[in-house]
Amino acid sequence: MPEVRDSGSPTAAEISARIRPRALVEQNGSDQKRIAIPEPVTELLRQCGRPTPLHRARRLEKHLGTGARIYLKREDVLPTGSFKLNTAIAQAYYAAEEGRTTLVTETGAGQWGMSVALAARMFGLRAEIFMVRCSLEQKPYRRHYMELLGAEVQPSPSPRTAIGRKILQDVPDHPGSLGTAISDAIEYALGRPSAAYLAGSGMPHVYLHQTLLGLEVATQLREIHGEALGVEGRGDHLIACSGGGSNLCGLIGPHLRAKADGADLRFLAAESTAAPRLTKGVYEYGRTDLGGFTPEVLGYTLGEDFIPPPNHVGGLRNHHSSPLVSLLRHKGVLDAVAFDQRTALEAGRLLLRTEGLLLAPEAGHAVAAALDVVAKADAHALEPVIVVLASGSGLLDLQGYNEVLLDT
Amino acid sequence: MPEVRDSGSPTAAEISARIRPRALVEQNGSDQKRIAIPEPVTELLRQCGRPTPLHRARRLEKHLGTGARIYLKREDVLPTGSFKLNTAIAQAYYAAEEGRTTLVTETGAGQWGMSVALAARMFGLRAEIFMVRCSLEQKPYRRHYMELLGAEVQPSPSPRTAIGRKILQDVPDHPGSLGTAISDAIEYALGRPSAAYLAGSGMPHVYLHQTLLGLEVATQLREIHGEALGVEGRGDHLIACSGGGSNLCGLIGPHLRAKADGADLRFLAAESTAAPRLTKGVYEYGRTDLGGFTPEVLGYTLGEDFIPPPNHVGGLRNHHSSPLVSLLRHKGVLDAVAFDQRTALEAGRLLLRTEGLLLAPEAGHAVAAALDVVAKADAHALEPVIVVLASGSGLLDLQGYNEVLLDT
Repeated sequence: MPEVRDSGSPTAAEISARIRPRALVEQNGSDQKRIAIPEPVTELLRQCGRPTPLHRARRLEKHLGTGARIYLKREDVLPTGSFKLNTAIAQAYYAAEEGRTTLVTETGAGQWGMSVALAARMFGLRAEIFMVRCSLEQKPYRRHYMELLGAEVQPSPSPRTAIGRKILQDVPDHPGSLGTAISDAIEYALGRPSAAYLAGSGMPHVYLHQTLLGLEVATQLREIHGEALGVEGRGDHLIACSGGGSNLCGLIGPHLRAKADGADLRFLAAESTAAPRLTKGVYEYGRTDLGGFTPEVLGYTLGEDFIPPPNHVGGLRNHHSSPLVSLLRHKGVLDAVAFDQRTALEAGRLLLRTEGLLLAPEAGHAVAAALDVVAKADAHALEPVIVVLASGSGLLDLQGYNEVLLDT
Repeated sequence: MPEVRDSGSPTAAEISARIRPRALVEQNGSDQKRIAIPEPVTELLRQCGRPTPLHRARRLEKHLGTGARIYLKREDVLPTGSFKLNTAIAQAYYAAEEGRTTLVTETGAGQWGMSVALAARMFGLRAEIFMVRCSLEQKPYRRHYMELLGAEVQPSPSPRTAIGRKILQDVPDHPGSLGTAISDAIEYALGRPSAAYLAGSGMPHVYLHQTLLGLEVATQLREIHGEALGVEGRGDHLIACSGGGSNLCGLIGPHLRAKADGADLRFLAAESTAAPRLTKGVYEYGRTDLGGFTPEVLGYTLGEDFIPPPNHVGGLRNHHSSPLVSLLRHKGVLDAVAFDQRTALEAGRLLLRTEGLLLAPEAGHAVAAALDVVAKADAHALEPVIVVLASGSGLLDLQGYNEVLLDT
């Protein structure tokens, strides 16, 4: 057991308060209806290309011969190649405002680490990033990117932390997981008062920052495409892949009220069969890390001991679904479906061959889910609006596409 | 000598007419002031994200402490990650219109091949791509991308052509060059009437298609940024890297008349010290391929036997500069400067650390040139407008950045 779980050690709430900028802790418990985006954050988001395009996938529609209208929210065009940059910039701002000088975090497939590395540089901060070992080995380019920005990148489990050393003692060739990396990062940040721990997903403040996704989608559907959402009897869908849940919650968050008020709107989470929490997990209390730094939370879980098989979908390999995503699922507000990596990559290839857009394997799960929704809609002669969150670019995932689809 | 150079073999003009769609041959010799873009081409260009952003690099300006206003024309956001897609779509359209079913081409660093692979897929055509061997080995991801789209990718020199077999007989470990790859592709296309050969650069029709770069820049400077270009005494600059010359000519083409009419406007070509044609070459007649398929053209050349050293700047490794670029240089309309790859990649890293944009090493040469222009302008207390063509994304060049800047 690591020291901090001993009697007299800080509670999870105390840990959170110590490692996080105060503004983020306040956002986690806020009951305000709206929280303003600070002007320097808005300015950087604009510089990075926000609002990102909402792309009508007409060629995919034509290929499928469907009456559905499919839209892609193109987060892949952001400089780091994923939606993660939205919250990284916000969190780095609050950390810098509070005088913290180092950003510490974990990363799975590397998108979050790239975003933190860039956000740190934009505010003149240092970055220490613990990256899931098997992803680090599969995706050296993402490590190079972070290092070019001046970030320090460590494999997780890490010999630099007590929890990392303990895990490596038990399982020397442990491939790492988001659980091990979260534990490494939190322990590392706890010991350094000048450090701020940044969460890539799972937390209310992250979901808050990502709600600009759903807000932009609503505006763009209305103003650019002249499209209403949630029309009765049409079966409109908002679809995102779900790992920590932030691209999903960011997309659907601003539309929860409309659905509660009766809009005909479905929310669909696409997960990986490598970590099928929402589709096969148990709804119970558990921890999201392995070190015991985070509070036990109620959610769909595969258990703390679950080690997902190494695959090319690092962003969807969590063992425990976040409380908010789990609650939405438990209450029936959110549907969920799981895909294996080949199906997701094949959906990604279809999108490349029709629309010319190469998305990350994680986003391929959302595309696969959309294809299923289209097939069902066509079978019932419905013509829904389907919004798919294109959460990230696949240019740095070509090795994965190659291994699964070409090298066979 | 390959067979087609024997007595009685077709002339270079006959070869060009045979392998190219007729519309492109006509464009090469057109004396029209304007040539309309076909509607299907416009539609696809829009779908791919045109007009691309003209980004004011305020954070770079601040870092440099300069009064110059630096703009980046962001071709890196196109789906294939480079400006090459602009002409690939146009050429594929004309080939399809003429009933040709296969697109054949060469590619250096791979950006052109990616663009042809995507354009072929968009028009339902096959693609056969000869890729410079050393680039293919350095950049497997670009090969994966082309193959995902269904393109056939061959290393050049290729055992599938007579010229390729001859080169391999003489130099079995020949790293390949744009010269070998052009020869492979043209020979391959010549033998197949259903095939169209697509040129990635160097030809008037390619420059024509790329003039949308300079046209968009002019409109965006005026309408979005309220900026005039060529103001007397300010020393405004248009800067692009120069390999085959198409991003350069596309950028400056629409501004040639203004300069001839007296606008204070400088055009600057940034080349690689690995192939310093404009800065160290001789102005004389020569061939751009090794097979003798292309006509002898007047240009700055390093000689047909020049084999550039393998480096990470595949797009700038030609041995012979195009007639138009060379003429502009010879007449003093165009300035030129050469950079080694480390300097170019360091400029690229600076842009990443300030603006958050990771450009291809080729574009890094243009950024390096801009840094020099800024330094000189600052020394003379000038505050020019500087437009840099961000010709491509560097996400697939991270291995090169890593080897040159990090692994040392």
